[in-house]
Amino acid sequence: MPPLRTALLQSSGSPGSVAGNLTVLDEAAGRAAHAGAGLLVCPEMFLTGYAIGEDVARLAEPAAGPGADAVAEIAVRHGLAVLYGYPERDGERVFNAAQLIGPDGTRLANYRKTHLFGPFERAWFTPGEQPVVQAEVGGVRLGIMICYDVEFPENVRAHALAGTDLLLVPTAQMRPFEFVAETLVPVRAFENQMYVAYVNRTGQEGEFDFVGLSCLAAPDGVPGARAGRGDELLIADADPELLRASREANPYLRDRRPGLYASLS
Amino acid sequence: MPPLRTALLQSSGSPGSVAGNLTVLDEAAGRAAHAGAGLLVCPEMFLTGYAIGEDVARLAEPAAGPGADAVAEIAVRHGLAVLYGYPERDGERVFNAAQLIGPDGTRLANYRKTHLFGPFERAWFTPGEQPVVQAEVGGVRLGIMICYDVEFPENVRAHALAGTDLLLVPTAQMRPFEFVAETLVPVRAFENQMYVAYVNRTGQEGEFDFVGLSCLAAPDGVPGARAGRGDELLIADADPELLRASREANPYLRDRRPGLYASLS
Repeated sequence: MPPLRTALLQSSGSPGSVAGNLTVLDEAAGRAAHAGAGLLVCPEMFLTGYAIGEDVARLAEPAAGPGADAVAEIAVRHGLAVLYGYPERDGERVFNAAQLIGPDGTRLANYRKTHLFGPFERAWFTPGEQPVVQAEVGGVRLGIMICYDVEFPENVRAHALAGTDLLLVPTAQMRPFEFVAETLVPVRAFENQMYVAYVNRTGQEGEFDFVGLSCLAAPDGVPGARAGRGDELLIADADPELLRASREANPYLRDRRPGLYASLS
Repeated sequence: MPPLRTALLQSSGSPGSVAGNLTVLDEAAGRAAHAGAGLLVCPEMFLTGYAIGEDVARLAEPAAGPGADAVAEIAVRHGLAVLYGYPERDGERVFNAAQLIGPDGTRLANYRKTHLFGPFERAWFTPGEQPVVQAEVGGVRLGIMICYDVEFPENVRAHALAGTDLLLVPTAQMRPFEFVAETLVPVRAFENQMYVAYVNRTGQEGEFDFVGLSCLAAPDGVPGARAGRGDELLIADADPELLRASREANPYLRDRRPGLYASLS
């Protein structure tokens, strides 16, 4: 099976402007497709911006809303899958969500962040209740989580047990937590024997100072690509053959002893 | 509460010679006590050596055997607690164990490795069945695991949930797994908000090439001290006040959602 070339759009776009962010996405999708990518991953809340206060509620829309249609149009036109973060409205509730659109425009999966971070997110969002959301693109099993979720080893382990090959993690990672991007994310890839695409925002936005440092971490714990702190389109491969060989050499999932882990749940 | 000064004895001692290893331990305990340490941690299987083949069975002894008496005498004479790795005999079974002796010579805790690594260990040892073993020294709650155990995030999380402040990890970490010592261990300390003392062997022993790189990792993910690849007595503090403040700032244990982790056990 050929590698899945993956593009990581490290950018904060235009916080508060959906139209502006769709323009950034369209341009990035064109460059990603030109580089042979089959998948483009955007940061947390990319469609609207993250630190947008009450605009979270105003701009929130259903999973099948106009934002999804616009992203689907971009995905089809450039012929690649797109994962984008957005505030999802479901009746009175708003979720911090990320939706995967296939290269044919189909909505393949929608994930609602289960582990909300800090008072800002708890003020605006309802936590999701489904820990593992997956879909397949190019023969690779993709999993989705968002930012703080990945800092809990339990969440990523649940994905490994469910067969995730490439975990997509839109994030809004701010100072002083560079350690998470630089060190924790590669460890997640190693200890679970999967790829992890960690895709961050950049620069100052409201009270937050986003650190960039997006990466595609491989199952050997080494990032196959690592961004700096500014806007960047990072492109790297997730290779199913390398993954298979690495799992053979590092049998963590075989050597687990689930009977000893009862206290965790 | 004052910090617990901790000494990490990075050394392979004299594989196959219990008397030789007790001499190395005695000398290290003297230096550790002189530096103000209240606790000395030795590598995996320090009492006998690790790659000693059938000597594992020949040198194995009960938790209350002559090795324990000799270590207790050293602990009392130098006035500090000692954790040492050894092959524990219990009838026909042999465990890869680590025992903690208090400064008064009391046997405070005995842990049997639950996650055996590779064909060598599986040939000689029975896996332990108790995931969390703890004891208190100087007001600090100590936990014990051994080597491969720490690579499973579930094991360390179980300790965090049980209140471990300082996790002691005798190890026999070999090439090409430097990533574990350098990167994974500090992440364990950060994600669980605890100290981790990872204490390794050195040099070539049988088929193995041990990498040293012992460390005392702090809850901010930064090793307070890090050894090189050769023999070394590393000394660093585990500070309960710093730990308390770090837990306040990084509320991973409060923010967990155990109801979502059922697939792990």
